Amino acid sequence: MDIGWLSGAGVAWSTDPAVREAHRADRSGWPPDGRPAAVVFPQDAAEVQRVLRLADAHRTPVVPRGAGTGLSGAAAAGAGAVVLDLTRMNRIVSVSPVDAVAVAEPGVLTADLDAAAGAHGLRYAPDPASVAISTIGGNIATNAGGLRCAKYGVTRDSVLGLDVVLADGRLISTGRATLKGVAGYDLTGLFVGSEGTLGVVVRATLRLRPIPLATATTAAFFADVETAAAAVAELSTSRVQPAVAELMDEANLRAVDAAQGSDLAARGSALLIVQTDGAGAEAEAAVVTAVLARTATSVRTTTDPAEAAELLAARRLSLPSIERIGRPLIEDIAVPRARLAEAFRGIAAISARHGVPVFTVAHAGDGNLHPVLVVDPALPEVPAAAWRAADEIFELALRLGGTLTGEHGVGTLKRRWLTRELGADNHELQRGIKALFDPHGILNPGKAI
Amino acid sequence: MDIGWLSGAGVAWSTDPAVREAHRADRSGWPPDGRPAAVVFPQDAAEVQRVLRLADAHRTPVVPRGAGTGLSGAAAAGAGAVVLDLTRMNRIVSVSPVDAVAVAEPGVLTADLDAAAGAHGLRYAPDPASVAISTIGGNIATNAGGLRCAKYGVTRDSVLGLDVVLADGRLISTGRATLKGVAGYDLTGLFVGSEGTLGVVVRATLRLRPIPLATATTAAFFADVETAAAAVAELSTSRVQPAVAELMDEANLRAVDAAQGSDLAARGSALLIVQTDGAGAEAEAAVVTAVLARTATSVRTTTDPAEAAELLAARRLSLPSIERIGRPLIEDIAVPRARLAEAFRGIAAISARHGVPVFTVAHAGDGNLHPVLVVDPALPEVPAAAWRAADEIFELALRLGGTLTGEHGVGTLKRRWLTRELGADNHELQRGIKALFDPHGILNPGKAI
Ligand SMILES: Cc1cc2nc3c(=O)[nH]c(=O)nc-3n(C[C@H](O)[C@H](O)[C@H](O)COP(=O)(O)OP(=O)(O)OC[C@H]3O[C@@H](n4cnc5c(N)ncnc54)[C@H](O)[C@@H]3O)c2cc1C
Ligand SMILES: Cc1cc2nc3c(=O)[nH]c(=O)nc-3n(C[C@H](O)[C@H](O)[C@H](O)COP(=O)(O)OP(=O)(O)OC[C@H]3O[C@@H](n4cnc5c(N)ncnc54)[C@H](O)[C@@H]3O)c2cc1C
Repeated sequence: MDIGWLSGAGVAWSTDPAVREAHRADRSGWPPDGRPAAVVFPQDAAEVQRVLRLADAHRTPVVPRGAGTGLSGAAAAGAGAVVLDLTRMNRIVSVSPVDAVAVAEPGVLTADLDAAAGAHGLRYAPDPASVAISTIGGNIATNAGGLRCAKYGVTRDSVLGLDVVLADGRLISTGRATLKGVAGYDLTGLFVGSEGTLGVVVRATLRLRPIPLATATTAAFFADVETAAAAVAELSTSRVQPAVAELMDEANLRAVDAAQGSDLAARGSALLIVQTDGAGAEAEAAVVTAVLARTATSVRTTTDPAEAAELLAARRLSLPSIERIGRPLIEDIAVPRARLAEAFRGIAAISARHGVPVFTVAHAGDGNLHPVLVVDPALPEVPAAAWRAADEIFELALRLGGTLTGEHGVGTLKRRWLTRELGADNHELQRGIKALFDPHGILNPGKAI
Repeated sequence: MDIGWLSGAGVAWSTDPAVREAHRADRSGWPPDGRPAAVVFPQDAAEVQRVLRLADAHRTPVVPRGAGTGLSGAAAAGAGAVVLDLTRMNRIVSVSPVDAVAVAEPGVLTADLDAAAGAHGLRYAPDPASVAISTIGGNIATNAGGLRCAKYGVTRDSVLGLDVVLADGRLISTGRATLKGVAGYDLTGLFVGSEGTLGVVVRATLRLRPIPLATATTAAFFADVETAAAAVAELSTSRVQPAVAELMDEANLRAVDAAQGSDLAARGSALLIVQTDGAGAEAEAAVVTAVLARTATSVRTTTDPAEAAELLAARRLSLPSIERIGRPLIEDIAVPRARLAEAFRGIAAISARHGVPVFTVAHAGDGNLHPVLVVDPALPEVPAAAWRAADEIFELALRLGGTLTGEHGVGTLKRRWLTRELGADNHELQRGIKALFDPHGILNPGKAI
């Protein structure tokens, strides 16, 4: 791939092998063939426009990249690709407390935006567990979820408008600066979750929400994970909307115990953590407690932030604890809430069948499960049994009326499965949209659809 | 236009002049040229498929129609068009309380779906003021808003998946049955708000939400509407998210007084009604009251449903009261919340300049204003001065960083303005999408984009 044209773009770039290697993979465990040809570091929208105009003319594949924390191989960049690293475009352009709106460049770390809003009693609601290390642009391009989306929605629900550079270098604005608006088709929604295949987000207008006046945290242990899943389902008709409902299975509790010296698994075989918020947080927690107490072995509620942090620590420490055991491959299916218990049961059976340890944690309020497959880190490649187990987990999700991916995206890893979920006619329309937005197929080819 | 092919579609249809006349206009006050050629009444998706397949082959324009309550001319059907009346497809297919999901056909009245959910402590959150007379399909096709979208979002935020018949008669499913999911591009969002120009919705999977445990209603009078608008803006940083924040100007209050014998205008020149909900409704109302009391002439809060209904009655009676004065043309701009006061001021100036009475009510939490222009009902047509005033209101909205339409849609009435708001490149992409989904341009031509 000839990338000589890059020198005409007037943009900082590098072909240093270490830089290229650092921009090759994401956090999915799936490495592309080869290394990208170069990494470009634009400083503003005009630089992105110049790069894409030339790349389009030269038919060079471009892989937009935020922090590279993705879990689906969406930012993976193999031989011949140019990586567009957006982390230098990291200005928070404005925070308007009265409008409850912020404008940010794509390279801003999500937690930094949230902190800027916090100065005004506001927050940026979407909170992927990677909030401190992932970018707004990456969150938008993957439509990232997080812990509190049961109540506050996913990234899509906080994006009002976008500035996007199209494949041919044109800059368009979508959406609006107002909280509501229905002028024309929803191009904003089309770009959100499109994994860098339809355009490059160079600026976002984002909705902020009030920091709730109070938060209450309830932790309940259960004799088994299926009983816990059924208890979450019971909450549906309790007239309370939890902000957070995280469920950890026994394997998770044991992993945390082993790493941290805690005694979680001795207290039950599943842990459910529920947060309610707003001025009625405590009253709503009382409702939650009453529902959970019917089947839990123990329930405890607190409004003390330190105690809440301690309760949530088990959840936060899950991944680091698993990493001590082996190399984690994080899956991401979602099922209708009523099928949660079946999903846990099915995953356990798949784990046993393939001899691949699986640790499952769920954003249970959304029916979104993360089965974490663990493989031997000493192996040069992920063993076939693990990929087979992952395939069966996808199959399970579809059989239960669910989806291949609740929040991490399709990337490269789930493309093979996509027609099964979407149906052929839907998938064909999606390819038509891709061809309309990117006629020469230069934007992150081979990803998302 | 030859519609002989209709007899081959095996679907109930009519060319009765009274039926055609009844399916000609919506509630925008804008009549199309001529009358539709026929009205078709499909009973199921297969019938819709047959009609579209033949219409596409015969290049006959088809106008999908719900209840015809739209305010932008989107369902208007002139000479040569075939109207696809979806009101006979009105089954609530299922309500799954544990999943908090309902499946409904497009002709279901919004209030009926909400009532079905209510049996389980759940509700369908989007609540356009037309909830009792408009359809789920129409709400989806216009991305309808309502009173409580400040907290619970617009129709888009409650649509998980759709079954859609494409222009050529193919049936696709979009989205999912789960609360979260990111497999592929967001076609669901593309169909929502597309005003029947991209496909016909034949089934929808909808998200339900808990009926809040309590609701508190606060009514505050102000010396003028600009002070009231500023007070709403102040709420932004109070760490409370109102579910409802409705603002009525003096003209509105006088109209309601004249029609109902009330004394609202004597109590202030603007009325702001705020609802908070959830277990903390009362505590949050106390915060709201404290903020509003700084500038209001009076503030009163209640948790009694009857008293709340009385407070909201003024808002509900606004349109019927205005209808006694003349024929209302309901506009629908949105501006950043910080510009609300300027918007009210600008609208008053436009009203004075053109001698067209304007009564403005706002979903103030969203910055969404409905200036209602009133014209002489005896005139055969809307006078030019009224259309000019409407044009200046659009201009004002764009100047304040806002949008032409917060929730009613573009339809036929605002198309002329659309490129100004979207920009030429964005608008061109939208036309490309239209051509991709509907190559022969048979679906609601001349609408939306
Ligand atoms: C420990 C850990 C926890 C995680 N927790 C969660 C979680 O709770 N919820 C969740 O949803 N995800 C989670 N993730 C996954 C990941 O953090 C998210 O997918 C995140 O949104 C990726 O952001 P990024 O900046 O790292 O993007 P990258 O990984 O760099 O890129 C992701 C995709 O976005 C595209 N992209 C990036 N920037 C742009 C842009 N400006 N314009 C166009 N396209 C762009 C890339 O091409 C790629 O397709 C987690 C990951 C880790 C490692
Ligand atoms: C008194 C009153 C109050 C109102 N209050 C509000 C409000 O608070 N908020 C708000 O947003 N709107 C409001 N409206 C406007 C109107 O009710 C909404 O736009 C509503 O969503 C239209 O629904 P409908 O069933 O009447 O659709 P119609 O008017 O019949 O159609 C509207 C559009 O949807 C398309 N369409 C209808 N069904 C389908 C389908 N199944 N598939 C594809 N396309 C379809 C039509 O082609 C047309 O483009 C109000 C109207 C009135 C008269």
